[in-house]
Amino acid sequence: MSFELLPRTEAGKRFVKLAESHAADIATRAEQHDREGSFPVESFEAMKSSGFLAAAVPTDFGGFGLESLYDMMVGMSRLAKGDASTAIAANMHATGVLVIARVMKRSGAAGDVQMAATLQELLRQIGAGRVLMSFPTSEPGTDIYTPMTEAVPSKGGYVVNGRKIFGTVSPVADLFFPSVRIPNDAGGYATATAIIPRNTPGLEVMGNWDAMGMRASGSNDVVFTNCFVPAERIFGRRENYGKVGRGFPDFLISGLLPLIATFLGIGEAARDFAVATVTKQRKGISQKRLADRIPIQHLIAECEIDLSVSRAITERVGQAAELFIQRSATTEPTSEESTALMKEVQCMKYVVNRKAIDVVDRAMTVCGGGAFMHKHLLSRLYRDVRAGPFMQPFAPYEAFEYIGKIALGLDPNLDR
Amino acid sequence: MSFELLPRTEAGKRFVKLAESHAADIATRAEQHDREGSFPVESFEAMKSSGFLAAAVPTDFGGFGLESLYDMMVGMSRLAKGDASTAIAANMHATGVLVIARVMKRSGAAGDVQMAATLQELLRQIGAGRVLMSFPTSEPGTDIYTPMTEAVPSKGGYVVNGRKIFGTVSPVADLFFPSVRIPNDAGGYATATAIIPRNTPGLEVMGNWDAMGMRASGSNDVVFTNCFVPAERIFGRRENYGKVGRGFPDFLISGLLPLIATFLGIGEAARDFAVATVTKQRKGISQKRLADRIPIQHLIAECEIDLSVSRAITERVGQAAELFIQRSATTEPTSEESTALMKEVQCMKYVVNRKAIDVVDRAMTVCGGGAFMHKHLLSRLYRDVRAGPFMQPFAPYEAFEYIGKIALGLDPNLDR
Amino acid sequence: MSFELLPRTEAGKRFVKLAESHAADIATRAEQHDREGSFPVESFEAMKSSGFLAAAVPTDFGGFGLESLYDMMVGMSRLAKGDASTAIAANMHATGVLVIARVMKRSGAAGDVQMAATLQELLRQIGAGRVLMSFPTSEPGTDIYTPMTEAVPSKGGYVVNGRKIFGTVSPVADLFFPSVRIPNDAGGYATATAIIPRNTPGLEVMGNWDAMGMRASGSNDVVFTNCFVPAERIFGRRENYGKVGRGFPDFLISGLLPLIATFLGIGEAARDFAVATVTKQRKGISQKRLADRIPIQHLIAECEIDLSVSRAITERVGQAAELFIQRSATTEPTSEESTALMKEVQCMKYVVNRKAIDVVDRAMTVCGGGAFMHKHLLSRLYRDVRAGPFMQPFAPYEAFEYIGKIALGLDPNLDR
Amino acid sequence: MSFELLPRTEAGKRFVKLAESHAADIATRAEQHDREGSFPVESFEAMKSSGFLAAAVPTDFGGFGLESLYDMMVGMSRLAKGDASTAIAANMHATGVLVIARVMKRSGAAGDVQMAATLQELLRQIGAGRVLMSFPTSEPGTDIYTPMTEAVPSKGGYVVNGRKIFGTVSPVADLFFPSVRIPNDAGGYATATAIIPRNTPGLEVMGNWDAMGMRASGSNDVVFTNCFVPAERIFGRRENYGKVGRGFPDFLISGLLPLIATFLGIGEAARDFAVATVTKQRKGISQKRLADRIPIQHLIAECEIDLSVSRAITERVGQAAELFIQRSATTEPTSEESTALMKEVQCMKYVVNRKAIDVVDRAMTVCGGGAFMHKHLLSRLYRDVRAGPFMQPFAPYEAFEYIGKIALGLDPNLDR
Repeated sequence: MSFELLPRTEAGKRFVKLAESHAADIATRAEQHDREGSFPVESFEAMKSSGFLAAAVPTDFGGFGLESLYDMMVGMSRLAKGDASTAIAANMHATGVLVIARVMKRSGAAGDVQMAATLQELLRQIGAGRVLMSFPTSEPGTDIYTPMTEAVPSKGGYVVNGRKIFGTVSPVADLFFPSVRIPNDAGGYATATAIIPRNTPGLEVMGNWDAMGMRASGSNDVVFTNCFVPAERIFGRRENYGKVGRGFPDFLISGLLPLIATFLGIGEAARDFAVATVTKQRKGISQKRLADRIPIQHLIAECEIDLSVSRAITERVGQAAELFIQRSATTEPTSEESTALMKEVQCMKYVVNRKAIDVVDRAMTVCGGGAFMHKHLLSRLYRDVRAGPFMQPFAPYEAFEYIGKIALGLDPNLDR
Repeated sequence: MSFELLPRTEAGKRFVKLAESHAADIATRAEQHDREGSFPVESFEAMKSSGFLAAAVPTDFGGFGLESLYDMMVGMSRLAKGDASTAIAANMHATGVLVIARVMKRSGAAGDVQMAATLQELLRQIGAGRVLMSFPTSEPGTDIYTPMTEAVPSKGGYVVNGRKIFGTVSPVADLFFPSVRIPNDAGGYATATAIIPRNTPGLEVMGNWDAMGMRASGSNDVVFTNCFVPAERIFGRRENYGKVGRGFPDFLISGLLPLIATFLGIGEAARDFAVATVTKQRKGISQKRLADRIPIQHLIAECEIDLSVSRAITERVGQAAELFIQRSATTEPTSEESTALMKEVQCMKYVVNRKAIDVVDRAMTVCGGGAFMHKHLLSRLYRDVRAGPFMQPFAPYEAFEYIGKIALGLDPNLDR
Repeated sequence: MSFELLPRTEAGKRFVKLAESHAADIATRAEQHDREGSFPVESFEAMKSSGFLAAAVPTDFGGFGLESLYDMMVGMSRLAKGDASTAIAANMHATGVLVIARVMKRSGAAGDVQMAATLQELLRQIGAGRVLMSFPTSEPGTDIYTPMTEAVPSKGGYVVNGRKIFGTVSPVADLFFPSVRIPNDAGGYATATAIIPRNTPGLEVMGNWDAMGMRASGSNDVVFTNCFVPAERIFGRRENYGKVGRGFPDFLISGLLPLIATFLGIGEAARDFAVATVTKQRKGISQKRLADRIPIQHLIAECEIDLSVSRAITERVGQAAELFIQRSATTEPTSEESTALMKEVQCMKYVVNRKAIDVVDRAMTVCGGGAFMHKHLLSRLYRDVRAGPFMQPFAPYEAFEYIGKIALGLDPNLDR
Repeated sequence: MSFELLPRTEAGKRFVKLAESHAADIATRAEQHDREGSFPVESFEAMKSSGFLAAAVPTDFGGFGLESLYDMMVGMSRLAKGDASTAIAANMHATGVLVIARVMKRSGAAGDVQMAATLQELLRQIGAGRVLMSFPTSEPGTDIYTPMTEAVPSKGGYVVNGRKIFGTVSPVADLFFPSVRIPNDAGGYATATAIIPRNTPGLEVMGNWDAMGMRASGSNDVVFTNCFVPAERIFGRRENYGKVGRGFPDFLISGLLPLIATFLGIGEAARDFAVATVTKQRKGISQKRLADRIPIQHLIAECEIDLSVSRAITERVGQAAELFIQRSATTEPTSEESTALMKEVQCMKYVVNRKAIDVVDRAMTVCGGGAFMHKHLLSRLYRDVRAGPFMQPFAPYEAFEYIGKIALGLDPNLDR
């Protein structure tokens, strides 16, 4: 009786199985990419070849037709057991595909033939393994609701200037989808997303990703200097610049939830490694295996509890999000519904991020001083796992404020 | 979009709705019974009249035909929002019915006509509201796997001697089901359960329940002095005296899980009360409602996170237990399967018990010094909620050892 | 090598030794007073007779001449090991004496002959065991910086109206020192303290103290209805109504620190009880004493760590406060100095209150289900110990905000 | 009113002032050595030149005559604020000097003229800045009480074989002091310490230190292959091979306590950095400084509380250890005394190690995603600070068992 998360759709089962197989493969190169800070190009080639990265492309266009957000979460948690930084990079692209496929269908259903056709073409390219995507939304000195990268109207389109950080997948991405602000008539801004091909003049991937963890994710700065973007490649305009929580678009949820799930995968990998280590017979002088010592059992139990909790909240909130998205196809969710869901998502994020950190910490204690060495698996997980709380939305201290406000029926905008 | 637990069967929906209605009613008498330490006889009459206590009796015999353990959990969590000590008393009887109905069906399916008939008669009596049951298993100086209450063979049956503690429902129970040990030929013991009617000579309910919390549960000592029990009223004999974890019988799981869920209900009641308190306009000098102060939002957020976690693990483990029990009807579970489930149950128990304590604690902080008064709802919840970790199996320190051993593939017997 | 807190002055050693002796005595009546909610009149008689309650009266006026705040803290922590609610009541009076003796000396040194003489007479009365004092400062719907009990000027003095809560010692107090507000010319208020004898017309002790813990502290409401107070019995006027942290008067620190130390005493009592329980040979079936089980050792270790921390911070902050008060005799401390000290005091309060709660909780786990019974020592400690976080200043959530603001160099007034 | 730790002796004040000055200097090279994993040779040269590394050498032999263990702790906590890995390396040498000076004095007092003379010569060399020392005690597959590096008697001395790990200072050490075992007549072993000059044939420093943190500490493996050691260079023989806690020699305490204090320094550095960061005006769009946001104040408050606790326990246990060592000069401490002290030391170690980790974690949260970058101070502290719990004695899970056993009056040997 296994308690790991399980996919629920047929496409999801195929996806998760493939995730497990890729996890085993990418694990073999994880230490090297971590040490070098290099992007796992060969892993991405393998995930392209297998169809993994195009899983959410409809079968008509060459994918698996994976539609389930929850199954995407399960797959990403599994892939992360092999290498977390590869997983978060794969996640950025793959969940983008999930959303694009969904928007394509809704566009079709809504009679927006042109949009549907454009997205079908894009999906076909992705299905053929010809397009990788990066969605940079973070910038220094601001938050994700308030981009300062600006798209100024110019004839036939916009001119984009700005600098994004955490541009995951940037070393190999063919298309970039930065969030931008557009000046509006009221002297303020609208927010939107631009689609900018890699070879656009003025787009530069800085190659400066040098973090303490997630070193293989290629999360470089991406700079846009007078990049021209045709009008039809600016989409999703909303008049909510700087506002939190007037509803959360499902693309945010679709990207965020599988991302959170990768941290569950890190915790599971740490726990598995610790259990394997202590159940081995030791070569030293002690008569007992570490597993036979009760204090070690205590630490392992704490890991089990944390993982049990993390899996439960991932499953419950994941299922709720799945349902929410399904319903959104036919009925626009109210602001109350989306903030209620986001409250639970933030509970999940906080718990999974924090528990993964705690599990890695205990696994290190269990494994002893060797875990402090650079080449030890756990020392990489220790560095990778700390990325979780930084990811937006929200930082932990913002999450508490947000959750509290929603629970108390208050305006979800934080006291920034 | 509400995130409270929801029943999944039709009988469960009826049961949960009734639980909510009873909760509102028993809440009105909770303070008085708490102060007096008196048993809520009128609440039990009401729960008999409504059919709530007989919900798990098959419809043929006068019940709702509630079969779902998970729905029982949901209902008990809801009942506990009104009064936790009434809920744990109701739970002891009601989950007993659930198990008896299940055993009755399996006996019938297995061709044990006599057993099936006996249980049908019992269920009919319960369905008619004529029988309340108490299942005392605890004793001082030992654990629940090692009863010292002894049933010594005597002609036509057994003579039972011993003293049980925590005999919940004892003030009104018509039948007692104490766990006993029976001397075996090997000089050791077998364990079994006896059925002893209240009016049996030598059975005495001590009326000594005087605890700091759960004061309305009637958990008196029950003393058996030379009580004669006919042979057919000793059942469930197993040769595992003093052993943990050679499989956990489903009756243990069926009683334990809804019991744990009552602590979720306590936490939810505390959170709801705190939210209601701080969102009221204050009469004092402050210009702000407490709800508008960020540190209060932070505390409420911590409650939300804990409850989100508790609900998630309750749902996930509850569903797994439900499935386990369904499968058990046709295939005897292996020892590995039942210890794997019990490991998750113990994770759930630890988390729900502890988080409920934490939520009540924060709710008190939020509500201020008034919450320290005897008559304040939270001061009762504070005393009630601490009962959770004492409940067997397991105490928290045993739970850690148990969970750790199972996770490491070791013998689940604790180092006692 | 014992690590308990030790007094440092000769008077302090005498005081602490007496505290230990009284602790043993009051422990014998603690359960009864807790059950009844009755005030330990005989304990107060004994503490009067021994001179304990007048320890801080100068030797010339019949006391021990105890001047050390730190030694007062040590003594109160020890007294609380016998009964916490008796200790907090004794503390209110005894620390009041400490402050009065200090003010008397400073008045003399400053040439305020009349004030010195008045206080000398009061100290002589206290030294003779004829006066017990209560200092009620709390009121519903406001905070301690913003009293709503009002003293309105009237010929020859003031007329006081208002209602105080948590009027500890009220059943036997001869003099009450409520904080009051006085209308000022600017249309606002000043704050001050009134001295009101028990037999003043309009003063009523409500006899309504009925809390879940600290039940023997006599913390009734005290109502003042048109109580006339001569002008010379209103003192300590300050123009800081409603403000936090424009310096903390030493009387606040002198009362608060030993009060916090009583919670250390609760924790130590719980730990000692648990150790004594588990090191006894059990009568039951287990072959091992509980002390020999590693998970129990783990819980005891967690208690040790928490107590080690609590003692260390109590000693360090207590010594700093001692020094601060000594220096205050000659140099008025700056606002920065007093807020810096109060920041550390709040760290100490948070830690000692919380760790005491945690230690009691673990002690209960260690001792098992018996600890849930009303008559068990730990069930009383569980109820008593929760009083700590309610005590002002500050509630935990306010403490975090206060500490953070001071650490960041901001205005210490909270965002109320 | 500052609450940082302060030295209490004149030599200590000189030492701490120098520590602060070196801290500022070594901070400038910390990032580079961290990135390269290179040993800070120039920092060691500077600390030799200033006399810092020889502070504990008696003034007669060229040092400051620093005798206070507590002042050594204060100084090391301060040095670590500049760079923790340099500090732990400096600590290994400097506390060695402290112990050698002490043993020299006692040898003299005890009439052991030869030993005194030998040590005086060594101290003179150290005082002249000609000797740096490394004390490697750890080995893979065993614990520090059970060395497997073996010194086998051979004519005129011993032949040493074995491999030590965590050989801090090894890149520049002139003398190595590995712990060894010596076969005894009973077929078992004695333990002792060998003194082996760097240029001894068979001694090899492996240059393999490549950890995730503390990268500048030079903690390489050191291998001894048939190293000949003259008899007079094996000292401190004790017949307690493999035993914990038959008393802890003061050299263990003298090295361990300042080492723990370096983690306090890490926490203080992280807190200071976070405070400095959030009190700066931001360049971004927000109107508020981060410091003005209450959730940030909350996080800073949690850091303050943790540091207040860490400083308090460091001071209290440090003072107790100081006293213990002073008394040891005239009276051999009993086993009870030394285990009682070690229990408190372990409480201190657990608390300071863990709180430092927590403070760094919160500081990262406060500073946001930039703290995840390799070049950011906090990302180095995050990696450095995790070294604490690995340091012996004890790992956290062993510490709990040890503390619990001592508190319960049991044999301190762990259940290994």
